[in-house]
Amino acid sequence: MPERGISIAFGQVIKKHRKELGLSQEALAEKADVHPTYIGLLERGLRSPGLDVADRISKGLKTRLSKLVSEAESPRSKL
Amino acid sequence: MPERGISIAFGQVIKKHRKELGLSQEALAEKADVHPTYIGLLERGLRSPGLDVADRISKGLKTRLSKLVSEAESPRSKL
Repeated sequence: MPERGISIAFGQVIKKHRKELGLSQEALAEKADVHPTYIGLLERGLRSPGLDVADRISKGLKTRLSKLVSEAESPRSKL
Repeated sequence: MPERGISIAFGQVIKKHRKELGLSQEALAEKADVHPTYIGLLERGLRSPGLDVADRISKGLKTRLSKLVSEAESPRSKL
């Protein structure tokens, strides 16, 4: 029974931070060493990233992964 | 170039919390709806869990995922 709540919220958090930094999806993908289309899938909640990938993305966003996860856990992470 | 630092540290954090709760690997696996052998692989840093799986495990450990990740990020998470 897949529970996708955290992934959907995490994708929204990624998008918010990426936009704040003025990064394109492609630029963030390059920083995080993932496929150029992956960030878009993630931001739409269509992928549940592995912890290692999530950590690389957090570094690309200059933010600790625990902070991104914490924001994704907040009751209202619709941004 | 896989960077496994966070996964190895996360595995150690999982093990610490699991033992504090007096749960077997199998009992935690059942709570998190993962294969019985998966927790052992995770604790040894041999798997990088997806965010959804990590979230289910955190619920099995009655701890927020952001807290577990934060502990895994700490410079010295060797326990």
